[in-house]
Amino acid sequence: MRITVLRERRPGERRVAVVPELVPKLTEAGFEVAVEPDAGAELHASDDDYRAAGAYVGDDAIDNAKVVLSVQPPDLAHVRHLPEGTVTVSFLPTIQELPLVRILRDRKVTTFSMDLIPRTSRAQSMDALSSQALVAGYRCAIVAAERLPRFFPLFMTAAGTVRPASVLVLGAGVAGLQAIATAKRLGAMVEAYDVREASAEEIRSLGAKFVELPLEALGGTGGYAREMTEERAAKQRELLTPYVANADALITTAAVPGRPAPLLVTAAMVNGMKPGSVVVDLAAEQGSNVEGSKPGEELNVNGVTIWGGRNVPSQMPLPASRLYAQNVVNFLLLMLKEGNVEIDFDDDVIAGSCVTHAGEVRHHLTQDQLGEVG
Amino acid sequence: MRITVLRERRPGERRVAVVPELVPKLTEAGFEVAVEPDAGAELHASDDDYRAAGAYVGDDAIDNAKVVLSVQPPDLAHVRHLPEGTVTVSFLPTIQELPLVRILRDRKVTTFSMDLIPRTSRAQSMDALSSQALVAGYRCAIVAAERLPRFFPLFMTAAGTVRPASVLVLGAGVAGLQAIATAKRLGAMVEAYDVREASAEEIRSLGAKFVELPLEALGGTGGYAREMTEERAAKQRELLTPYVANADALITTAAVPGRPAPLLVTAAMVNGMKPGSVVVDLAAEQGSNVEGSKPGEELNVNGVTIWGGRNVPSQMPLPASRLYAQNVVNFLLLMLKEGNVEIDFDDDVIAGSCVTHAGEVRHHLTQDQLGEVG
Repeated sequence: MRITVLRERRPGERRVAVVPELVPKLTEAGFEVAVEPDAGAELHASDDDYRAAGAYVGDDAIDNAKVVLSVQPPDLAHVRHLPEGTVTVSFLPTIQELPLVRILRDRKVTTFSMDLIPRTSRAQSMDALSSQALVAGYRCAIVAAERLPRFFPLFMTAAGTVRPASVLVLGAGVAGLQAIATAKRLGAMVEAYDVREASAEEIRSLGAKFVELPLEALGGTGGYAREMTEERAAKQRELLTPYVANADALITTAAVPGRPAPLLVTAAMVNGMKPGSVVVDLAAEQGSNVEGSKPGEELNVNGVTIWGGRNVPSQMPLPASRLYAQNVVNFLLLMLKEGNVEIDFDDDVIAGSCVTHAGEVRHHLTQDQLGEVG
Repeated sequence: MRITVLRERRPGERRVAVVPELVPKLTEAGFEVAVEPDAGAELHASDDDYRAAGAYVGDDAIDNAKVVLSVQPPDLAHVRHLPEGTVTVSFLPTIQELPLVRILRDRKVTTFSMDLIPRTSRAQSMDALSSQALVAGYRCAIVAAERLPRFFPLFMTAAGTVRPASVLVLGAGVAGLQAIATAKRLGAMVEAYDVREASAEEIRSLGAKFVELPLEALGGTGGYAREMTEERAAKQRELLTPYVANADALITTAAVPGRPAPLLVTAAMVNGMKPGSVVVDLAAEQGSNVEGSKPGEELNVNGVTIWGGRNVPSQMPLPASRLYAQNVVNFLLLMLKEGNVEIDFDDDVIAGSCVTHAGEVRHHLTQDQLGEVG
């Protein structure tokens, strides 16, 4: 049976679903691995690297595929030709991809979304949202350090002492915690805030200062915050204003799944920052944590650099692909039994991450959305 | 008596000789400080910041100046109008500035070059070459981390381990040591090489691996290496080839004072690097340690990014100016006595850094150069 690795086709996507070094994990499970030409080009993994790892590489890689792997959702052009019973595994933010979900359902494809892997201990090694957030969080801190025209660390020199940079991180999920850890490594003074109660301890354990605001904490599930009322959000912005004004570098990473990112920092708050300061908004693609940030753009607003993230894990395609591939392979291994694919819906990881199967939409939220939209 | 701080006029120079916070050190010594408008613009130090610190700011700042301070050598246009006995303090690489030196001599200006501050313990707090090299070394490591499409640190995650980046630093003077320290901070595996015997211990004390080559060490003075024979240089390149090929990031910082930088890495050696690797050549302006690097340019050669440094301290104008200003003020304080300038040539720091005085060129090497060139 054949497992096919697609070449990514969406603009700006530089990752690949399986890196050469992980090909043997799938061949050892009794599968043929077929890879589209140039699939690993952006991370300098050549077709020969895949061949050396035991894969077939060819334009016809998708023919007779039982399992189709990709990072971004597979193209409509591909999906229209998939035979009944094919299995696809990729990121698939269903709310943004309803037309694709309908076709996958109608073609009786079995579709898994890596966005839906449950955040349980057992599924940790398959948690691609977390692994990609780790890459993004590291990248945010490095981007801030590179654009800030001053040192992150304290320097004590013969010519006197230069104080370290003040870095403020808003949102302390996986990406935010990694940004904190990286900025701390570089020697910055780091403060961080998150609406979730559990985050204070995590932030402090990295040696950063937790910003305590006189607001009640918000709960949340799976490491994400719940959405908050506009009244609380406004109060929060007001209380954060002096912290933002004090920061040399501001990194925002606040996301609410399935919703636009919360506006944490207004244009007026950015205006209150010192000229030469840097803002890195990881949430720019999801609607922005910072007013005025644009995905994939670097703006200068009154001397403040505002960097908007766009597919940030793809900016480090090698480690991002390496981790994603391991997540995907770990997930697949739940289903690969002696050269066959066996889908056991009693397994909560398999059941939880399945979007379509046998002509049905199995994910409840997506069912609702499909019902509403049409 | 007036001490004047010039606005820098050379393209790409973003520093300033005195930052506002150091103005009081000079006014307390009994001097008036006059600053040209917009002198601190590039580091967001406004004219009002200088005024608040006690300086006069105006287009006529240079009028009646007893001491003229700048980072780059003063402009010919300025120098032609300086009265006899004026004191200038700036960087002044005399070999490149012989026409300017001649005019400074003929106008009977007393000229000090911060390049010539002796590397003695007493003069450490005035050592501007070192303070600016510190800034440049930090910047080189951050530039490499930002351009390398993989992590500097080791990551141990639920989806497996990602190995740290291999960083190779060639040249371990102040800049090289700071690049090593910063790359280590970020968690990279760092190897380094320098021709000077003393460097092995310094490199190891930062936790990096010293690359031992079967070549005799070269002596040197003031932390700089002597020039070597072409035969030894060729052998060294040959021996370094496998280390360069293994590096994800290569940072070169080798300089020989008053000479072009040594060619450490040939185009063929760069060709042997993995695609996606990064080369940061701090010596690009001095003739390049790496064949093909261009000052101020970022090139892609067969998938390898080659970044050539150009006035690298100016890329961090705030800390660079802060440290330079402290160096200059410490130096000046040797001469500022009760509101007067007293130049004591029995002081080895003053004598060693003086280029022209009372119509004579006092710096021997510059005398020789002027003799040769005419």
